[in-house]
Amino acid sequence: MAVLDPSTWLALQRRVRFGDTDAAGVMHFHQLLRWCHEAYEESLERFGIAAAAVFPTPGGHLAVALPIVHCSAEFRRPLICGDALAIALEPQRLERGRFEIRYRFRCANPGPAGSADPRQTVDGPAAGERLVAEGLTSHLAIETETRRRCDLPEPIERWLEASSLGQGPRPL
Amino acid sequence: MAVLDPSTWLALQRRVRFGDTDAAGVMHFHQLLRWCHEAYEESLERFGIAAAAVFPTPGGHLAVALPIVHCSAEFRRPLICGDALAIALEPQRLERGRFEIRYRFRCANPGPAGSADPRQTVDGPAAGERLVAEGLTSHLAIETETRRRCDLPEPIERWLEASSLGQGPRPL
Amino acid sequence: MAVLDPSTWLALQRRVRFGDTDAAGVMHFHQLLRWCHEAYEESLERFGIAAAAVFPTPGGHLAVALPIVHCSAEFRRPLICGDALAIALEPQRLERGRFEIRYRFRCANPGPAGSADPRQTVDGPAAGERLVAEGLTSHLAIETETRRRCDLPEPIERWLEASSLGQGPRPL
Amino acid sequence: MAVLDPSTWLALQRRVRFGDTDAAGVMHFHQLLRWCHEAYEESLERFGIAAAAVFPTPGGHLAVALPIVHCSAEFRRPLICGDALAIALEPQRLERGRFEIRYRFRCANPGPAGSADPRQTVDGPAAGERLVAEGLTSHLAIETETRRRCDLPEPIERWLEASSLGQGPRPL
Repeated sequence: MAVLDPSTWLALQRRVRFGDTDAAGVMHFHQLLRWCHEAYEESLERFGIAAAAVFPTPGGHLAVALPIVHCSAEFRRPLICGDALAIALEPQRLERGRFEIRYRFRCANPGPAGSADPRQTVDGPAAGERLVAEGLTSHLAIETETRRRCDLPEPIERWLEASSLGQGPRPL
Repeated sequence: MAVLDPSTWLALQRRVRFGDTDAAGVMHFHQLLRWCHEAYEESLERFGIAAAAVFPTPGGHLAVALPIVHCSAEFRRPLICGDALAIALEPQRLERGRFEIRYRFRCANPGPAGSADPRQTVDGPAAGERLVAEGLTSHLAIETETRRRCDLPEPIERWLEASSLGQGPRPL
Repeated sequence: MAVLDPSTWLALQRRVRFGDTDAAGVMHFHQLLRWCHEAYEESLERFGIAAAAVFPTPGGHLAVALPIVHCSAEFRRPLICGDALAIALEPQRLERGRFEIRYRFRCANPGPAGSADPRQTVDGPAAGERLVAEGLTSHLAIETETRRRCDLPEPIERWLEASSLGQGPRPL
Repeated sequence: MAVLDPSTWLALQRRVRFGDTDAAGVMHFHQLLRWCHEAYEESLERFGIAAAAVFPTPGGHLAVALPIVHCSAEFRRPLICGDALAIALEPQRLERGRFEIRYRFRCANPGPAGSADPRQTVDGPAAGERLVAEGLTSHLAIETETRRRCDLPEPIERWLEASSLGQGPRPL
């Protein structure tokens, strides 16, 4: 049963693609935020929530919108075209009508040591599977009609609840 | 053996993500070209060609570059967030040192009929799996040092050769 | 009077930005299609048409949508970060309810000859202001309610009409 | 003389474009980070620093790279297609070899009150020119050869110095 194993929807994979890079040869920073949102969407999908239940679609009428009110990212190591990434999501309910998601990117197949890493001296040499970047998105529930803050939609509540099972106290 | 079943690397899947849409509620046109290139990269990867063998990476020294000299796309039906797409690639060797790839996007799980399709009257109502869009990229091999046109790199030749096995004459 | 000088809204400028490039060091191909659409939007704006009169906005109710049904691009020379581009738009009314826009990109300030151009041998050495790329978008008018093909909206008709003044027969 | 008026290179303008929006009808969050970087590039350009002096280009050999190690953004009000934005940059030198840039986005021409703002109740009704979003990028200087942290390149030092002239103590 999926609920017993949150890794089914909280542990994802993706590859760095050529169009994600810039002329420095490595991933261009803001692509990471795109990856974060796509990981959030994929996680909901794997959990069993249809996109149209959360994201506006033509002809759909959602009672609640979930705009992102804050985001951030840390870039620890450069990522190059072809890098295989493991993405770990940590969704967390905050105060009423608000949640955030932390995304930790690890590189399962880093490039050759010393060639691609402009921050090598800072972070030490490459190892097998390293934390290469982190992201954070913070989401606020509002009624689409009145624009007032409101409770999270039920599918998001279920996803948050199931995602927190088996997690001990989390470090900041 | 992979060569016996080109569908392993020529038939791919992806989802339309929220960030791919625009305020008309549907996929913003130029995202399709991004999907095409990412499908090309995924196809090479599934065939067994490392990204660094074809795409520039820091510290890598490729003798041949493969710039895109032409691209085009046809948009037959609107795509909405969450749509599951099947992508069929048809790579084809052209004259010396040049190849193109055709991409056909079919929607495995189209949205509710009549709600999301601004071109419904043109193309008829939605059916199970429809051709929703097509893309084309045309690539030219050049020596990175002399900038002269040259033969395709060997991995690309193998991929083109294997991809054409079992294909009869293709329609224009 | 603006109508007397279409260059006011048909001759635009932009710079290649770092995020437009990829690890080959040059503009990543699909960014050009984004530039094309942004040039179309800027042209309407300079002509005096508000974005909300043509593009969907929250709370707006447009009777006619103008989806792109086809696009293409030719890449003649590589573009590098910082390149100053002159963009010439040529909008053209086609059959009822359809128009297309051709975009010609010239580089006013090309990079040092021989360093940045993978297709130098094909196209010859760099000169002062060269055609570096071309784009095309083709747009179809449909009623947003019935989804039927319809006439172009009035602001677009005016823009097309004014844009064709003073233009002789155009080459294909 | 430019140095006497930093607003020449620290106060910029841009429009929200259709491709920047998503199916919620408003700017998709990660586009803001792209705008931030493009504003940084435009600021250097207006100050008189050539792109190739700071950003990698083919054939160029920069001794120092300036990767982004952290970014963040706050989204206060939704932005719709056509919105005219004023962008104020505040670059600041941090410890050796590190600087950050704050970006404040104000909307000079907000959409009709009550129609486009999902957070209206939170932030109050629209006024003439409001703070709609903020961004932050943090940059670290490293030697491209040794990958060690190093001093900022001279053009960046000049830009930071000139940008701080006439600024009093800054609020957090």
